[in-house]
Amino acid sequence: MSTKKLQVGVAGLGRMGKRHALNFHQNVPRATLIAVSSPDAAERQWAAENLAPHGVAVYESYDDMLSHNGLEAVCVASATSVHAEQAIKAVEKGKHVLCEKPLGTTVEVSQTVVDAASKRPELKVMCGFSRRFDASYRDAHAKMQQGLIGRPAVLRSQTCDVLDPSGFFVAYAEFSGGIFVDCSIHDIDLALWFFDEEKSKVKSVHAVGITAVEPDLRKHNDRDNAVGTVEFYDGRIAYLYASRMMAAGQEDSTEIIGTKGKLSVNILPADNHVRIYQPGGIRQELPQTYWDRFKAAFTTEAIEFTDSVLEDKPVPIKLASAVSAVKIGAALQESMVKGTKIWFDEQGNRTDRAQL
Amino acid sequence: MSTKKLQVGVAGLGRMGKRHALNFHQNVPRATLIAVSSPDAAERQWAAENLAPHGVAVYESYDDMLSHNGLEAVCVASATSVHAEQAIKAVEKGKHVLCEKPLGTTVEVSQTVVDAASKRPELKVMCGFSRRFDASYRDAHAKMQQGLIGRPAVLRSQTCDVLDPSGFFVAYAEFSGGIFVDCSIHDIDLALWFFDEEKSKVKSVHAVGITAVEPDLRKHNDRDNAVGTVEFYDGRIAYLYASRMMAAGQEDSTEIIGTKGKLSVNILPADNHVRIYQPGGIRQELPQTYWDRFKAAFTTEAIEFTDSVLEDKPVPIKLASAVSAVKIGAALQESMVKGTKIWFDEQGNRTDRAQL
Amino acid sequence: MSTKKLQVGVAGLGRMGKRHALNFHQNVPRATLIAVSSPDAAERQWAAENLAPHGVAVYESYDDMLSHNGLEAVCVASATSVHAEQAIKAVEKGKHVLCEKPLGTTVEVSQTVVDAASKRPELKVMCGFSRRFDASYRDAHAKMQQGLIGRPAVLRSQTCDVLDPSGFFVAYAEFSGGIFVDCSIHDIDLALWFFDEEKSKVKSVHAVGITAVEPDLRKHNDRDNAVGTVEFYDGRIAYLYASRMMAAGQEDSTEIIGTKGKLSVNILPADNHVRIYQPGGIRQELPQTYWDRFKAAFTTEAIEFTDSVLEDKPVPIKLASAVSAVKIGAALQESMVKGTKIWFDEQGNRTDRAQL
Amino acid sequence: MSTKKLQVGVAGLGRMGKRHALNFHQNVPRATLIAVSSPDAAERQWAAENLAPHGVAVYESYDDMLSHNGLEAVCVASATSVHAEQAIKAVEKGKHVLCEKPLGTTVEVSQTVVDAASKRPELKVMCGFSRRFDASYRDAHAKMQQGLIGRPAVLRSQTCDVLDPSGFFVAYAEFSGGIFVDCSIHDIDLALWFFDEEKSKVKSVHAVGITAVEPDLRKHNDRDNAVGTVEFYDGRIAYLYASRMMAAGQEDSTEIIGTKGKLSVNILPADNHVRIYQPGGIRQELPQTYWDRFKAAFTTEAIEFTDSVLEDKPVPIKLASAVSAVKIGAALQESMVKGTKIWFDEQGNRTDRAQL
Repeated sequence: MSTKKLQVGVAGLGRMGKRHALNFHQNVPRATLIAVSSPDAAERQWAAENLAPHGVAVYESYDDMLSHNGLEAVCVASATSVHAEQAIKAVEKGKHVLCEKPLGTTVEVSQTVVDAASKRPELKVMCGFSRRFDASYRDAHAKMQQGLIGRPAVLRSQTCDVLDPSGFFVAYAEFSGGIFVDCSIHDIDLALWFFDEEKSKVKSVHAVGITAVEPDLRKHNDRDNAVGTVEFYDGRIAYLYASRMMAAGQEDSTEIIGTKGKLSVNILPADNHVRIYQPGGIRQELPQTYWDRFKAAFTTEAIEFTDSVLEDKPVPIKLASAVSAVKIGAALQESMVKGTKIWFDEQGNRTDRAQL
Repeated sequence: MSTKKLQVGVAGLGRMGKRHALNFHQNVPRATLIAVSSPDAAERQWAAENLAPHGVAVYESYDDMLSHNGLEAVCVASATSVHAEQAIKAVEKGKHVLCEKPLGTTVEVSQTVVDAASKRPELKVMCGFSRRFDASYRDAHAKMQQGLIGRPAVLRSQTCDVLDPSGFFVAYAEFSGGIFVDCSIHDIDLALWFFDEEKSKVKSVHAVGITAVEPDLRKHNDRDNAVGTVEFYDGRIAYLYASRMMAAGQEDSTEIIGTKGKLSVNILPADNHVRIYQPGGIRQELPQTYWDRFKAAFTTEAIEFTDSVLEDKPVPIKLASAVSAVKIGAALQESMVKGTKIWFDEQGNRTDRAQL
Repeated sequence: MSTKKLQVGVAGLGRMGKRHALNFHQNVPRATLIAVSSPDAAERQWAAENLAPHGVAVYESYDDMLSHNGLEAVCVASATSVHAEQAIKAVEKGKHVLCEKPLGTTVEVSQTVVDAASKRPELKVMCGFSRRFDASYRDAHAKMQQGLIGRPAVLRSQTCDVLDPSGFFVAYAEFSGGIFVDCSIHDIDLALWFFDEEKSKVKSVHAVGITAVEPDLRKHNDRDNAVGTVEFYDGRIAYLYASRMMAAGQEDSTEIIGTKGKLSVNILPADNHVRIYQPGGIRQELPQTYWDRFKAAFTTEAIEFTDSVLEDKPVPIKLASAVSAVKIGAALQESMVKGTKIWFDEQGNRTDRAQL
Repeated sequence: MSTKKLQVGVAGLGRMGKRHALNFHQNVPRATLIAVSSPDAAERQWAAENLAPHGVAVYESYDDMLSHNGLEAVCVASATSVHAEQAIKAVEKGKHVLCEKPLGTTVEVSQTVVDAASKRPELKVMCGFSRRFDASYRDAHAKMQQGLIGRPAVLRSQTCDVLDPSGFFVAYAEFSGGIFVDCSIHDIDLALWFFDEEKSKVKSVHAVGITAVEPDLRKHNDRDNAVGTVEFYDGRIAYLYASRMMAAGQEDSTEIIGTKGKLSVNILPADNHVRIYQPGGIRQELPQTYWDRFKAAFTTEAIEFTDSVLEDKPVPIKLASAVSAVKIGAALQESMVKGTKIWFDEQGNRTDRAQL
């Protein structure tokens, strides 16, 4: 094992960007955070106070950061709308890339990243689907592969955020791609992983949604609660729920139901091992954010991405998979908005109606 | 409180009929089981051994049982295909009726029972949706009505039977009406109850299904795993899962998600308060059948039906509700088989496409 | 199976007496409640309103009730201080007896009931240790007997009541025999049952107690929280916790730890299958009283006692066992009050100090 | 924040030593592991392969390691019998010390470390009670301090290891100080922490123990299952269970019962968020070792110890507390072996019998 460290820059210092920057700075022994960039002055101020003292360069311009001396890899954690563009620039400059999900809000945009990466096969380019790095999901996946549940046939999965009464999600919806592309993308990725996307091809998608707490989301063709169904040609079903309305905290649960058993992940969320007994009953607290639930997974993700570069190993998730996920997510969003069921043939092309 | 007891007969002595007969015999202090009927010789033999010694008359013919001296009420627990016919005959003979769900496998047949009952308003006629009598569902419903979760917006519910490798379900499917009419009918009824069917009118239904373990179910247009979505005009969603493939036991769970909180019922099933610690972990056993899970509810159902007759009170569930449930269940079944999304207008008529 | 019904009277109509009376009245098909007695006018008034209309005779004098025409069995549910006296009177009058625990607050008094019963072997006399009739404890006991946990070696058990700020427990302590005789008696009985009292002889007991919320309990040599240890000659330990201070509800939990596994009963109490998700977390409510937790067990107890009389079968719990339980409970109470460890020889006699 | 890193050596490379060494190497950004020592050749071989390539010096002699150039702090993770001696040597050489628990197996030996440390107040010397660094225990402690449960009155805590049929624990018992000093020391430390050792002085201890699976433990005056009770002068009780016999995995649970509520930590252990549904029920796996359960706490411990040195802050746990814990543990062990209850006066001296 070499003692060389990967020189990393983080693009974007918003909610997720800050976390990725601190994560690379504190929790990845084989990486050194050397630069960050953000067009936002307040975010740069935060970096000036928290990262610069440790020798991290702070840039306003992403392009300038890309030219930082010695930079080897970029973690793209900016707004979704610039994910693809920034990832491609980095690739073209010869940098390895860990890109936050999704690559883009459309298949076309997402595919441009894959195309760019395919021209530079020596670079490691990965879209970070954090759940694949979570210890519990990995345990479940390993147990499934050992045959513990027979053939997995039905997957139920949800990504449900705590209610944020500030209106944040309305503004956010303008560029997020919608609740299926932003939230359910995680659950879709799980379906691709547990069902094996090489074998399971999407046959149809259908979705419905409501605005129970944020009617203004409709301005951006979005909803605050949505249910989607994905049918696969090889006789499998994934059904998904996404919400911005949870009262108790972040509730990301998954069930994988097979012909001989079932695995559940986080069916009854809890933040830690504490229970509180008071008049009214026994209570357990929940993680309040996606990051709280998955912070250890983000660390594993950053460590394994770093390892794949330093040791020239394949990245843990194929980049093309990220395009498949966006394809399904965007189709679900369209189905929800238009009220139509959407069909695909076995080659993945849209079709009027599948033969039953 | 009078000490008069209701004189009850039970029609059908199959799996459920036996249970209903014993239930009325042992657990309903204000009722006396006086007669049972079954066209099946083995079932009558069982009754001869277990019920006749306690003074219960055993009939081959349902019509003959209806003429039994002193009979006041009938519990129809025969095959689904004769529910309606038997219920109507009983009504026409002036008997109160507790009918197992569903009234019929089609809306038209189910409606005939309502029509017959409406001509005899002095009779108590109820379709037994057992979950409405379960202490946990009642507690959840009461908490919802107290406003604990704000406005209920999304309901997830499942009725999932343990895997029965005997092939029982294939034969059963010929007359059951299909998995949505047989299993999900319970979850549909919960949606009607929690969302208030007076206010929430169905806008669309969509379903998909697979045969993961019982391909022969397709002969009867049925599936062993199915997922359905029901959209309501007032901005609510119910999504349902039914299965014949559970490995661990009966898994009937429900979540009611409101704008200010959530209630779950049986999210982590357990048969009792015991946990078993062995190499491999901590284990809790599950009820193996629907009856095991809901037997106390069936007793409450029988007690309350009996009370409604003896005290001339309204039955706890309006009969028309049972038709609404079949309407939704049958539409889901059709959607699953045909692959189409089905729309309704606000008057409950099918329509080509709702206006969005 | 005969259709004859056991004619039952209930002595005492306090908190438990009312419940036993209603239990026999409503839930025991083979018994008929025909008489009750209470020296308390308010309690008799309750009976006049709730039981008399159903043909139940109401007596002020217990002796008078014993002479009620046709009375066959008595359920003694009066104050602990008269349990033994009333049970003996009933036996001497030739009545079967189901006596609430404990038989008495001392070994000597408890033994008088056993002596009286031994002179009338044709009568069924049982002390009602309700937990032996609970479905979960029975399941655990059966699993232990099947060898699931190897040899049971350590038993942890607790009987913990919800905090009652009314001061009820102070007055109650004057006659209850103290927290070990009143509460832990259940846990002691479990130890005798799971360890097999024929084989496991008590070697030593030790206890400590505090008054965390009710200092006035010290007037009656009692405490509101107490921990006891019971050591057995065959290398087993039971350790017990009793409390009058639970905030969330009734918490009666037990663990049986064997050489190859462990069984727990009610390790995480819950009143039903509902969970409530609100800001602050996920909450489950608890039963608030011992009766709430064990009401089904009390019904089973009454049914099985009735069956043992009607079918002339042995009662489910040997009467002598109730004396053993009081012996241990009273010794624990003494150890707690005096601060001493108390030793027994293998014949059950107190001794200065066991040989180690 | 300085970028200086603490130069750390680890003494002992047995089970725990390896873990501490890797922990400092991989998980503590502000520390650099520069040296390790072990008298055991196989352990040194492991270090030669796993640590030396990263620049870590490997010593046979602890004294030689102490002289390693630049060494600033030592983590003592060797056999319990040399903890005190090695800690004192390090202090005398001017090194900061993080010592695995217990300081020694007797009060006298443990006190020598405190005495040595008190002569070098500029050094940070801490005994590592890992549970004080666990997120769940910290959350519980914070909630208690916020008054959530009123005044804590009773603490139940257990340290229960998985059954190890290899006989490891017999050999280990020769030097471990016994099950109360080796295992329950954690629970005792929790009592000192939650009850506030400044206020709560021990009044009596009592313990019993058995050898259910390892009779050979008696050779070393030890047991495989033990229950202890600790009574405090200010009206509090801690009761403890330690075992080497768990079937399912590591079971370290704690309850803190206060006058207004209760907190539990890990009442139902689980290794992760996965549940497995198979015939037989729903199962959750457990951590198999103490390290598996607390590895994150060990990292926090190492990080906070490092911070306390680099920033010259008090260590998170007062060193004298470690002597108090050994005092109670050793008295419990003595009580168990001799069969006697042991009393202390309020100054902490043994006494014949406390005044009640």
